[in-house]
Amino acid sequence: MTYKAFTLSKYPQGHITTDIFELVTLAQPTLKEGEFLVKQTHMSLDPAMRTWLQPREDSYLPPVQIGEVMRSYGVGVVVDSLNAQFPVGTHVVGVTGWSEYVLGHADMQVIDASIPAEAILALFYFTGLTAYAGLMKVGKPKKGETLVVTGAAGSVGSLVGQLAKAEGLRVVGVAGSDEKCKWLVEELGFDAALNYKAEDFEAQLRVAAPNGVDVFYENTGGSIQEIIFNQLNRYARVIVCGVLADYDHEVPAKGPSWVDINLKSLRVQGFIVTDYASFADEAMSVLGRYLAEGKIQYKTYTVEGFESLPEGLMKLFKGENTGKFIVKF
Amino acid sequence: MTYKAFTLSKYPQGHITTDIFELVTLAQPTLKEGEFLVKQTHMSLDPAMRTWLQPREDSYLPPVQIGEVMRSYGVGVVVDSLNAQFPVGTHVVGVTGWSEYVLGHADMQVIDASIPAEAILALFYFTGLTAYAGLMKVGKPKKGETLVVTGAAGSVGSLVGQLAKAEGLRVVGVAGSDEKCKWLVEELGFDAALNYKAEDFEAQLRVAAPNGVDVFYENTGGSIQEIIFNQLNRYARVIVCGVLADYDHEVPAKGPSWVDINLKSLRVQGFIVTDYASFADEAMSVLGRYLAEGKIQYKTYTVEGFESLPEGLMKLFKGENTGKFIVKF
Repeated sequence: MTYKAFTLSKYPQGHITTDIFELVTLAQPTLKEGEFLVKQTHMSLDPAMRTWLQPREDSYLPPVQIGEVMRSYGVGVVVDSLNAQFPVGTHVVGVTGWSEYVLGHADMQVIDASIPAEAILALFYFTGLTAYAGLMKVGKPKKGETLVVTGAAGSVGSLVGQLAKAEGLRVVGVAGSDEKCKWLVEELGFDAALNYKAEDFEAQLRVAAPNGVDVFYENTGGSIQEIIFNQLNRYARVIVCGVLADYDHEVPAKGPSWVDINLKSLRVQGFIVTDYASFADEAMSVLGRYLAEGKIQYKTYTVEGFESLPEGLMKLFKGENTGKFIVKF
Repeated sequence: MTYKAFTLSKYPQGHITTDIFELVTLAQPTLKEGEFLVKQTHMSLDPAMRTWLQPREDSYLPPVQIGEVMRSYGVGVVVDSLNAQFPVGTHVVGVTGWSEYVLGHADMQVIDASIPAEAILALFYFTGLTAYAGLMKVGKPKKGETLVVTGAAGSVGSLVGQLAKAEGLRVVGVAGSDEKCKWLVEELGFDAALNYKAEDFEAQLRVAAPNGVDVFYENTGGSIQEIIFNQLNRYARVIVCGVLADYDHEVPAKGPSWVDINLKSLRVQGFIVTDYASFADEAMSVLGRYLAEGKIQYKTYTVEGFESLPEGLMKLFKGENTGKFIVKF
């Protein structure tokens, strides 16, 4: 028996293109004692994938190597097993790869089959922890402060905004279309949402954040970064979760001068979700409670079919999705 | 009776020039109940003065206003008093201003007359706390890590390096002349010191910090900032104490891209010494101990005469001093 997978054939130059991946057919492995085989059913496409395609060795994870199966995480079901902890029929979530089948590993987490895979990927795994740990542990928000989140209609951004709102902050989302902005305000309850493509974005931000910005959750990078940065208050915190737009240039655009970091006692901080794994239970508990109370909702953008993965990734980076991008096999 | 003072006559455009100050003659006030008069004997000239001359209202301190006496701190002796807590003959340190005489205020600290004014200003007041709080509380250094400090031959920088050395770090200083670098290595015990004017500064830094940079104490700004930034390790901390070079341009030079902040989980943080006042006793105790143990020394660069203040400030910003810049009246 065989299965399909996508390997990386070259690193991207600027924008992601579909031709950097190669569709290959692999033979199913014969299981050894302790091994188990997972058939992937739902895969998460994430902005972080762009960073895994940067061929630099000093990043938080080694880059995907040429010829390797593309890295990803997803949900699947155990279809063959020589491991008593993961019997056939077990539902799992974990690092999988762009592959229809994947050998299981000890880091995979068993999940309750009654929870939709979409909820797992949109709320209860890395996405939820990224939003929670970044906002609460790095950003340390205080009730009454103003938060601006970029990529606000994305999986992490939409959670960050709702979580901040539930924690008593004024929340301003920044997204790439009026339709997304409408969703953020009308459905998710953001105080304001701004289309960063608007020519008067700077003036709009002054109106939306009349008391300045205390917490800036940065998911996108690009030229609006400095506009938001310039409206930070003293002691503001910037959570640098992603700067996607900056990966599409061989030499990334420069950042803001450090004069304001000095004069306003700002803190600009990057973080990696895996360093906050110890807060996973706390995050799931808080997010679960807010979900039950109706303070948080999630939305998924689902594409069907294994072979749509490369195009799906392009769509993600073009910002075509609202909510969590999932590929369903 | 009259005394001399310098008021601010205009804000600087780029480099500090002596003509932004005006020498004025003021009449000595008649003391009211509770007041006391301080004759200033030693004044501190500090890089932070540049930030007090920026006419922006969102900084950590309001700018000195046009027509106001220039802000500063210094050491003096009470020469007239209607305040029992500050009798005539008391030595004090505190915010004074560019003025031969100054009305005392409750925030002034009484000091032991046996401690030289130079030691107070170089080690035991804002300078010491700035070095200590910035390095220890913001930078959170760990034994065995590598520190790079810019403005290393200045008052704060030279203390930061010695303190880090005493705490078990590898210390690389960056200064503006070979003579200063020699002093840092031969007298203060820095592991290495680099002249930032060297053409191969980047390569020299790779040799001086072979394991990369974990803590970057930034006192100067300018184009070397990004060279040092590019050699930061994962989880490195940047303490933005000052970016002096960046005040000399109407639009300050941009900072490094945030890509590395994201990929390497960096923290770039500004701070204001007055927010760390609660650590003053701890700082003085640690610095005092290291001084007694011979692990820390201080050097002063003293200029004589009240009227040399404006030129003294220019010298400070040109980096002519090694160690703490003091004007003695």
